[in-house]
Amino acid sequence: MQIILLSGGSGTRLWPLSNDARSKQFLRLLDVGGTGRRESMVQRVMRQLRESGITADVTVATSASQRDSVLAQLGPQVNIVTEPTRRDTFPAICLACEFLAREKNCAPDETIIVMPCDPYTEAGYFEAINKMAGGLENSGDELIVMGIDPTYPSAKYGYIVPAGGTASPNGVIPVKRFTEKPDVEQAKKLISEGALWNGGVFAFKLDYVTRIAEKYVKAENFAEIRDRYEEFPKISFDYEVAEKASKIGMVKYHGDWKDLGTWNTLTDELKTHEYGNVTTDGTGRNTHIFNELQIPLLCLGTQDLVIAASPDGIIVSEKNKSENVKTFAATLKQRPMFEERRWGSYKVIDSIEFPDGYCALTKQLTVNADCALSYQRHFCRDEVWTLIDGKGEVVIDDVRRPVQRGETIFIPKGVKHALRAFTSLTFIEVQSGSNLIEEDIERFDYKW
Amino acid sequence: MQIILLSGGSGTRLWPLSNDARSKQFLRLLDVGGTGRRESMVQRVMRQLRESGITADVTVATSASQRDSVLAQLGPQVNIVTEPTRRDTFPAICLACEFLAREKNCAPDETIIVMPCDPYTEAGYFEAINKMAGGLENSGDELIVMGIDPTYPSAKYGYIVPAGGTASPNGVIPVKRFTEKPDVEQAKKLISEGALWNGGVFAFKLDYVTRIAEKYVKAENFAEIRDRYEEFPKISFDYEVAEKASKIGMVKYHGDWKDLGTWNTLTDELKTHEYGNVTTDGTGRNTHIFNELQIPLLCLGTQDLVIAASPDGIIVSEKNKSENVKTFAATLKQRPMFEERRWGSYKVIDSIEFPDGYCALTKQLTVNADCALSYQRHFCRDEVWTLIDGKGEVVIDDVRRPVQRGETIFIPKGVKHALRAFTSLTFIEVQSGSNLIEEDIERFDYKW
Repeated sequence: MQIILLSGGSGTRLWPLSNDARSKQFLRLLDVGGTGRRESMVQRVMRQLRESGITADVTVATSASQRDSVLAQLGPQVNIVTEPTRRDTFPAICLACEFLAREKNCAPDETIIVMPCDPYTEAGYFEAINKMAGGLENSGDELIVMGIDPTYPSAKYGYIVPAGGTASPNGVIPVKRFTEKPDVEQAKKLISEGALWNGGVFAFKLDYVTRIAEKYVKAENFAEIRDRYEEFPKISFDYEVAEKASKIGMVKYHGDWKDLGTWNTLTDELKTHEYGNVTTDGTGRNTHIFNELQIPLLCLGTQDLVIAASPDGIIVSEKNKSENVKTFAATLKQRPMFEERRWGSYKVIDSIEFPDGYCALTKQLTVNADCALSYQRHFCRDEVWTLIDGKGEVVIDDVRRPVQRGETIFIPKGVKHALRAFTSLTFIEVQSGSNLIEEDIERFDYKW
Repeated sequence: MQIILLSGGSGTRLWPLSNDARSKQFLRLLDVGGTGRRESMVQRVMRQLRESGITADVTVATSASQRDSVLAQLGPQVNIVTEPTRRDTFPAICLACEFLAREKNCAPDETIIVMPCDPYTEAGYFEAINKMAGGLENSGDELIVMGIDPTYPSAKYGYIVPAGGTASPNGVIPVKRFTEKPDVEQAKKLISEGALWNGGVFAFKLDYVTRIAEKYVKAENFAEIRDRYEEFPKISFDYEVAEKASKIGMVKYHGDWKDLGTWNTLTDELKTHEYGNVTTDGTGRNTHIFNELQIPLLCLGTQDLVIAASPDGIIVSEKNKSENVKTFAATLKQRPMFEERRWGSYKVIDSIEFPDGYCALTKQLTVNADCALSYQRHFCRDEVWTLIDGKGEVVIDDVRRPVQRGETIFIPKGVKHALRAFTSLTFIEVQSGSNLIEEDIERFDYKW
């Protein structure tokens, strides 16, 4: 068995804690029951998979911008397949399946489970996944989906209508049809007929999907498929695969299944009310406060609020209005002010543009021990690094030398530079020049 | 006539916009009616003085920490007398009077008006001041005080009980006695007897106070008085002077007289609801938002709140609880993260301390055109300056050279350095070392 974990989303609904580089599923806010530790949604799903006895390899299908976050949070225990451009779930799942078939040499009859990384669920969800895999072996179904027991007639979800047959020993029941998001009246009727929510979890044999993929991209190897990624239609897996399958089964899941994608739904699950440098007078009611800035945040009183501060911005919102953040966050868009990268992390601590267009951007960066920044140069900006902690070495125009805390390195435009950390290495970087964009970079190979 | 404007206060009640270096009276939040410009309390008082036809010289009595703020906001149009240490209103007024007598050579019978800089008042307040000065000339009173028409039986103010005589042509009525803060029941009784609030505005002849001052410090010159400042008793002017005067008059003032020293009272006077980089959904009710940070602040809904963010911190408070900020601000105390200085201003953009005690502090500084940083050296820290705008010159261990945007200057510990700006000059400073305190400084004279 192989697991494909879908990790997408831009995450503006949890602004300012989430941004393009740090989607909601990477926020480390969830309590790991009783341990005092916190984990993110993707970390929780990985932990739950393992705790439920599922030892299958996991391949995360994600966008290039999330690659470093996945690596930082899940480490080398997963494979990562990144989409060259963002499309939809059908192309993303095809790409991951082709990776398994051609790079990991999985057999055509390997059982594949596709699952999203963001529903907040209980152990029964993973038992259902095991049943789906078992059912696939002996039901003759092309596809087995997970049906979520609906708790209200939602117009937000797709529905799965059962055919009415009896369940197999694995708990698989035949599916009659799928219905896309209905209105509330239709939803009520569907539920009365026994329909369930479509949870976006699928089980199938690997070649079932690779054969469909070949209809769009027939290639020699995985690299070519990835290069021709845009030839896949921009369509969901539900439309392109599930609704066209001839024999489909369903396994029911009854239990918690929540999208913690808005401040309102997320805070419902958080027992901790204050994160980071927060002081209160103890009179707040139903107020959740998140402070990722170094400066103190003081809260006196307040009711039914969510307050969050990060290097990207500050929100103060009534909880029942917090869904609207998406509308505004788009207009507040700026460069990400904080990023977790595979080599460490950085935050922007100052940004200023002068009337003549000259800019300065100051960052605090930490490169993890044994990690390195790539060898690179810029054409529009100078950089000054002041090392304030740790030891390592730099390469400046092919000359390598050791550096440590207290040293300052001036890197004029056009000069190639790289840095490697022996111990965790922190420095302040002042970029200045006429055009401070991430794209002003030329990368070189360097053999350390 | 000479005006002594008392400017004190630590300003924790308007945290995080106010701090030790920027007391509430320096916050530029008040609308200058109809002009679109904003002014601070001290700027408003100066403007009102001039608009009411009072052309007398103004001497600001303040603490050393506020000297630069006064200079930055009022400029050279005022004299500044700073207390060597903070004591109380009696010593502060003595010091200012000695300054007028000995440094400004004012005559012993010069009329002195002492007034606080922070009540929010109307034109009538300044008419009353003119009447106090006029009354002093022909009433024979040693002291004339301003009585504020009370609007409620407050237990927060001192009261002035009139003697019951008739008013002079200048509107001066005899005072029977002063009463310090009563309880509410006593206050009701006092008001029924015609008592007024003591507004802390005094008129007297210069030598009336210098003769009292001499009882404590008899000195050759002003410098000696300032050196021996601690010999003055720590006592208020009311106790030491007003309550001991034998013949006292009072001029009544009827009109607005407000202490805008809490978020609640301040925001009552502000027609503007959003200051700085603020976005709202337009559904907020009675919410005032102040954002002095560069990052955006988004507010969705909310009622009866004050929200303020500055480099010192963030507050979100119900308005009726905002008085409590004082209690908490003390515990959140840290170095001021923003200061207006006589040479310009700076803000702290990053601060980090490592487990071994080594620290780094990063600031963005702007030195105004034609201003200079003093010649100095440090023993515990290195500094790195990266110039990002403007032109000027630096002195490094007695060697002077021109500098401009794009240059980086490394100043190891022990090296003397100064900087002068030809045009407004902005730079990023990274301090790093074992002990980053303001006191790690040795200053030298330098002739530019």
